Amino acid sequence: MCIEQQFLGNFHEVAKIGATPKMGVERQAATKEDGLTKDWFAEYAQSAGFEVIVDAIGNQFAKVVWKEGQPSVLVGSHLDSQPLGGRFDGAYGVISALHVAKFIDQEVKKGAFSPNFNLVVANWFNEEGARFTPSIMGSSVFAGLYELEDMLAVTDPKGVTVQTALEAIGYRDDKDPGGIINYAEIHIEQGRILDRESIEIGLVTESWYTQKLHVDVHGEQSHTGATAMADRKDALITASQIVLLVRKVVENFPPESLVSSVGKFDVLPNSPIVVPREVKLVVDLRSNDPQIVQKAREILLNQLTELSSKDDISIEARDFDIRPKYFLSQEGIKINQSIAESLGMSTRLMSTMAGHDAVAINSVIPTMMLFIPSKDGISHCEREFTTNEDMVNGNKFLKESLKHLLVTPMAYDQPFISKTVR
Amino acid sequence: MCIEQQFLGNFHEVAKIGATPKMGVERQAATKEDGLTKDWFAEYAQSAGFEVIVDAIGNQFAKVVWKEGQPSVLVGSHLDSQPLGGRFDGAYGVISALHVAKFIDQEVKKGAFSPNFNLVVANWFNEEGARFTPSIMGSSVFAGLYELEDMLAVTDPKGVTVQTALEAIGYRDDKDPGGIINYAEIHIEQGRILDRESIEIGLVTESWYTQKLHVDVHGEQSHTGATAMADRKDALITASQIVLLVRKVVENFPPESLVSSVGKFDVLPNSPIVVPREVKLVVDLRSNDPQIVQKAREILLNQLTELSSKDDISIEARDFDIRPKYFLSQEGIKINQSIAESLGMSTRLMSTMAGHDAVAINSVIPTMMLFIPSKDGISHCEREFTTNEDMVNGNKFLKESLKHLLVTPMAYDQPFISKTVR
Repeated sequence: MCIEQQFLGNFHEVAKIGATPKMGVERQAATKEDGLTKDWFAEYAQSAGFEVIVDAIGNQFAKVVWKEGQPSVLVGSHLDSQPLGGRFDGAYGVISALHVAKFIDQEVKKGAFSPNFNLVVANWFNEEGARFTPSIMGSSVFAGLYELEDMLAVTDPKGVTVQTALEAIGYRDDKDPGGIINYAEIHIEQGRILDRESIEIGLVTESWYTQKLHVDVHGEQSHTGATAMADRKDALITASQIVLLVRKVVENFPPESLVSSVGKFDVLPNSPIVVPREVKLVVDLRSNDPQIVQKAREILLNQLTELSSKDDISIEARDFDIRPKYFLSQEGIKINQSIAESLGMSTRLMSTMAGHDAVAINSVIPTMMLFIPSKDGISHCEREFTTNEDMVNGNKFLKESLKHLLVTPMAYDQPFISKTVR
Repeated sequence: MCIEQQFLGNFHEVAKIGATPKMGVERQAATKEDGLTKDWFAEYAQSAGFEVIVDAIGNQFAKVVWKEGQPSVLVGSHLDSQPLGGRFDGAYGVISALHVAKFIDQEVKKGAFSPNFNLVVANWFNEEGARFTPSIMGSSVFAGLYELEDMLAVTDPKGVTVQTALEAIGYRDDKDPGGIINYAEIHIEQGRILDRESIEIGLVTESWYTQKLHVDVHGEQSHTGATAMADRKDALITASQIVLLVRKVVENFPPESLVSSVGKFDVLPNSPIVVPREVKLVVDLRSNDPQIVQKAREILLNQLTELSSKDDISIEARDFDIRPKYFLSQEGIKINQSIAESLGMSTRLMSTMAGHDAVAINSVIPTMMLFIPSKDGISHCEREFTTNEDMVNGNKFLKESLKHLLVTPMAYDQPFISKTVR
């Protein structure tokens, strides 16, 4: 069986883990299904002869050692998913990386390729952040952006901590993959640019500035039947107004220069005959221009103050999960432009609106990121789709990128934020 | 210890079951805490010498038998609560009924009172409907308004059925309290009329017409980061507009002639970085005038159709839990007006906006309902409050009402809806 067929066979096999009726997957972080993908990763890597280890936040690594004592190039993505998520988001990058690692290893063993460094494939823990907030958790702990202890103590809606959940599926240990010099990741675009322009590979230049806000709306619990309208302090009314203000704030800026959303929205006590006392919601603001996000945040905070004074409802807003705009390695872009030329593949430069493990790792290690097309740009849902052909193209490209880095790694070509590399 | 002190001691003892930090209680239907109140009911009743039985939907009855073979007067309310609910709602009526039953039993045993009928005290299952929808479940099954099998199959948000939950706390059996001729219930008003007018007892003449609607809003799940604003079908935006329309619909009618609410509101998948694909919400409409509810429903359904066509979002609305306007026994009102005169207590006629077990039972058995004041009309929350004095007044009144019914029951004085008495 050729390498493409092996890859496609494995890819569609993994898509069966946590499969949903409409071709999506449900594999939230540290659930049984997430554990099953980790089992698959370990089996695949071990059968290829790679050592598999797990760190203290549940990141899983497969080590391909050719040069004892040398540092490694890291490549990976994530196998966890959103609730009713797509089967390509994250999973493609991990399965691609494992197959490319195996292929390069075969070339090394045949004497057809001589790396100067080792290779490590990563399956990052909890990139999606649906069950445990914040997202991009495992790679951010790895990069030193979040404290391990803080993240282990994060709880899901049922009060289960990350630590307990990881231990329950048997994927918490204290291993370390050793020194890392470069990171590479391949991922579906989750936007429609490559699809619309019929381009095979996106070269990611930078990540959007993103920030979230926790907003808590406090009203007063009362009876939907017995409490007069004039006596109510209904937290859901105010929270609904906030959702519409968050939607409307984009109108202050050029079209699509800002995206704004409320994705998480919890009503308390959430009973049909009780006027809600509290709503907790999360606002998500993203733009390629940090000043747009800051301006939108300011407009919204002023509107919340106004709303709260008008309706005698208290509203608290707290910033969290602020992710600066990062530039990925410019040297990486040049390397990949030259690879595209030799492979005869079409590329374009693009920014990423979505957060990725690569964005976290990029803050401490020179990083490159590749995109392959997403049909109609649809993502985080069952209808997410990328063709077999686009996936196979991505593998070919990633193989060449990694082979380049394994010989001549990217140097730091820009200021990273000041964090110690583990 | 006098009967008032015994009552108050017991009342405040029961308020400790499932007590919350701010003097409320959390005793949702068929939870451990609900089971503990049932244990308390059984112990109190058995120590008073009453037989305690449980029926197939978890209603609990204490039988006080004086006239073997004769039917009974039924009196009761419910010990379950809303999430973070008040300690008076329902609990007062059950504890009051048990104490009054014991007091009347003592009078019978001393030869001071000769009833023609027996007395049964009921603790109805799941009046609140927070964990299991619909509310007023146990008394409605008892009255034949709902099918037993349908209600046993109702699930809570975790998928646990009523049957499983009742069996888990050991409160499902197949007993029947026998023939019932009349029903009486005493409850806190949950409105501010008695408190504002300093009146001791409310005589309930009728219940408001109420109806609920399940509204499901279907959009499309996508990525809060990567999906362009123009490509989104955000179910939460539309659902927020619906919440505001439901609030606004009251403006079509005279102030406070209609109350409208959304109390239950579930967002799917409810992840901070996913644009919501679906929102399920419950609309609650109540008025003393059925035509106002019907008109409000019509206005809303038209607005939903408009909203759905404008935003390319599908909206389904389904009527449920329609409760006609019921008139309580007019003979009961007259009996109580004459008792008020002899006790020197102040009363007024009033309707009930809230649903009650008495409303369900009234559909098949002549029923009277008494209210005592609620401080500021606050209910379904921890701040719910009624004074000891008002509770003791209520007990005195209920005792006289029951003694009257035990000698001369109310006859049918109006058309009830056509349902068979069990």
